[in-house]
Amino acid sequence: MARYSPSVQNLISKLGSLPGIGGKSAQRLAFHILSMSDEEVKDLANSITEAHRLTVRCSSCQNFTDSDPCPICSDPKRDRSVVCVVETPRDVATFERMREYNGLYHVLHGVYSPVSGKSMNDITLSELIARLQKDQEIKEVIVATNQTAEGQATALYISRLLGPSGIKVTRLASGLPMGSDIEYIDDLTLANALKGRTEI
Amino acid sequence: MARYSPSVQNLISKLGSLPGIGGKSAQRLAFHILSMSDEEVKDLANSITEAHRLTVRCSSCQNFTDSDPCPICSDPKRDRSVVCVVETPRDVATFERMREYNGLYHVLHGVYSPVSGKSMNDITLSELIARLQKDQEIKEVIVATNQTAEGQATALYISRLLGPSGIKVTRLASGLPMGSDIEYIDDLTLANALKGRTEI
Repeated sequence: MARYSPSVQNLISKLGSLPGIGGKSAQRLAFHILSMSDEEVKDLANSITEAHRLTVRCSSCQNFTDSDPCPICSDPKRDRSVVCVVETPRDVATFERMREYNGLYHVLHGVYSPVSGKSMNDITLSELIARLQKDQEIKEVIVATNQTAEGQATALYISRLLGPSGIKVTRLASGLPMGSDIEYIDDLTLANALKGRTEI
Repeated sequence: MARYSPSVQNLISKLGSLPGIGGKSAQRLAFHILSMSDEEVKDLANSITEAHRLTVRCSSCQNFTDSDPCPICSDPKRDRSVVCVVETPRDVATFERMREYNGLYHVLHGVYSPVSGKSMNDITLSELIARLQKDQEIKEVIVATNQTAEGQATALYISRLLGPSGIKVTRLASGLPMGSDIEYIDDLTLANALKGRTEI
């Protein structure tokens, strides 16, 4: 490889270890950073350390927040009888953007995934159980993990775990996405859409 | 949009202003950074500031380096009679990886691009001229700017500028990439390949 200086090589490898950033992008970003002004570089580095320093996990929903409990958990206008369980804080953002859901959340920070070495202890499952035991207001848990093998396994595990509690456990509907063309839909999605068909 | 805390919002916008990082990627990176350990975050922020602090432009070839002149310019084994003019430091890395070129470089840090507001003064053209006037050893300038409208315009400008100097100005060949299929090649590339045909 080319003769980059050690500090540049280090920057490239640090950037390349971030998710979704490959070798080429890391090089591109690194050289962009080198061509930035002193002020801009300071701002970028500070934004990283400051966001990390100021952010904690909400003790109730486990979402990232700068105030505990987070704005959603402490909002008196939210429906406290329903908790939507999601994999990541980004999923909370997606639900909020939709403006159709007014309940609370629980962020797992991952899914049960033996392949990538994530066990049930690596996600915030015990925090969810403790929360449900403490908070008798919660009547329904919507498991909104992804429609992947890991997401499905986690959803199934949660529903079994909560079975004896009497709390209603639901799962997001699986079916045809809006605007989709049946000709191009995969078999599994079509089968799920057929199985979950509703009367019109 | 979702209720991110100000520090997280700031991090997302800073990351999103980097080249090739869109809104979704910026969110993903930001939340990855939030889930990193204190140590990892410090390392990342430090690698950014340190690389920027230690890196200067080589006073000869204008490439980024931590020692001036850079390792290539100060290497006695390089052919000092030929200078390859490239747009970015990444292009130098690409040439070096190939191991077929043993001359020197000159990094323009951009191209003449009126559309994106880059004038001839924003690239290191005057440094190239000054270098050629000072260093009588240089006999050939290979203009290796990209095969884009801006790259071509810059190459043409450089060749006109150096015309009276007696220095040979060459351009990389344009033609069919190796492994390419003529059926799928664009017309301009095919026309250039035809124009530049060589005897076998």
